[in-house]
Amino acid sequence: MGRPGPLSLNTITVREQWSLEQAIEGCRRHGITGIAPWRDKLAECGVERAARLIRSAGLCVTGLCRGGLFPGIDQAARRRAIEDNLRAIDEAAAIGARCLVLVVGGLPPGSKDITGARAQVRDGMMAILDHARRSQMPLAIEPLHPMYAADRACINTLGQALDLCDELGEGVGVAVDVYHVWWDPDLARQIARAGRRILAFHICDWLVPTRDLLLDRGMMGDGVIDIPAIRVKVEAAGYEGHCEVEIMSAANWWRRDADEVLRVCIERHASSV
Amino acid sequence: MGRPGPLSLNTITVREQWSLEQAIEGCRRHGITGIAPWRDKLAECGVERAARLIRSAGLCVTGLCRGGLFPGIDQAARRRAIEDNLRAIDEAAAIGARCLVLVVGGLPPGSKDITGARAQVRDGMMAILDHARRSQMPLAIEPLHPMYAADRACINTLGQALDLCDELGEGVGVAVDVYHVWWDPDLARQIARAGRRILAFHICDWLVPTRDLLLDRGMMGDGVIDIPAIRVKVEAAGYEGHCEVEIMSAANWWRRDADEVLRVCIERHASSV
Repeated sequence: MGRPGPLSLNTITVREQWSLEQAIEGCRRHGITGIAPWRDKLAECGVERAARLIRSAGLCVTGLCRGGLFPGIDQAARRRAIEDNLRAIDEAAAIGARCLVLVVGGLPPGSKDITGARAQVRDGMMAILDHARRSQMPLAIEPLHPMYAADRACINTLGQALDLCDELGEGVGVAVDVYHVWWDPDLARQIARAGRRILAFHICDWLVPTRDLLLDRGMMGDGVIDIPAIRVKVEAAGYEGHCEVEIMSAANWWRRDADEVLRVCIERHASSV
Repeated sequence: MGRPGPLSLNTITVREQWSLEQAIEGCRRHGITGIAPWRDKLAECGVERAARLIRSAGLCVTGLCRGGLFPGIDQAARRRAIEDNLRAIDEAAAIGARCLVLVVGGLPPGSKDITGARAQVRDGMMAILDHARRSQMPLAIEPLHPMYAADRACINTLGQALDLCDELGEGVGVAVDVYHVWWDPDLARQIARAGRRILAFHICDWLVPTRDLLLDRGMMGDGVIDIPAIRVKVEAAGYEGHCEVEIMSAANWWRRDADEVLRVCIERHASSV
């Protein structure tokens, strides 16, 4: 088993500690060669300024988090979502991101129609696809763990995401996050099916017990996911990019010194990925 | 859309309030015609005594919860699990249960090998299958929500459970719990595939937000699951049994008066199932 691809820092890993500018400087200081900003931090920094800082730090932008959230209670809400996604594509292009990561959205408020929500995701993606293609900005559907089906993303397996990719065609791929897919009995087959449509590879770990559905992700090696086994499959499918560490951890990693967090990420990237 | 099948009370719904004897008496008092005990409460009551009480109350035992938990750290642990399952089959037969519900178990302590755990589940089931068949006690694999893959059950979709049924043959079916399967994009197809192998149908609801991975299930109608849509599919597949309400709710329903809980279950069974 060879060594993993280079490390990228998804900035949510140090959300409570650092601004985007600090994260860029932190990556430079620690020798981390990739970064994936979130849009709120990008807006704080300013898109043009962030683009300059990232460029001068020599960082690869492994993705912009995030577009998506397409389903809406009415036509106006869905239209607003589409407009926001068009802006996200422009932002992603401005910072030279490898892809725009899509967390597609869950059920609109009051709805129990998950099939309808899934149709709204498809329709929303179709509405932004031309702009994404013209901008040469690949859209990365991130299937989210089924525990987020109601409130974050109604695309919940890699197979389902790839079905949507098949339907939409050129310019659409997937982001594979071990946290969301590790449990899937069909994972190996779907990773092979994905092939070079894997646009991003996210890493963290599943803790036992998990104390919060959203903000209790673990550092690689602290949980039960066989990350190397998944990473090797992703590489065998043709992925040659970074391993992007994305840890939302309110009770642990968000409370630590950010330089310590980055040091541990680097150690675990070497030992547990 | 016709009316749902009759209501059954999974006793965990009033775990903090009632003994099994009280639950049996509560079902009788409220006109609930089915019950599904858990083994700890059954042991407290005594199996023979419980069987008499259930019989004289005229209740249908829609399942015994639970067998399973097959994966183990070593041969001895797996052997103990098998022996416990053999006893569970005898208990289920003694109380005239329609099936023994299997929560198959997750990863053994320290393991990251979910494929191996799944193989241990298959091997464990093969080891108890003869005894189950001789006892005429159907084994109901309950696919659990993927968020329990690590620590409770590594069978996480209905399709995966049915693959295992196909492999094991006669005497094995599935328990379909809306909480575990509602998100599955392949659900309709797999319910149709299951056909009469659906041995139990469990109901509750998925709350938004969900504050605890295990003990924050909602009352039917309080969440986002389109329960009637799933129920109709289950019936169309040939299921003619009870709707078994199974709510683990530490912060809400376990703190309420149990007679009130049963009244609400009955109302919601009529309005939201």
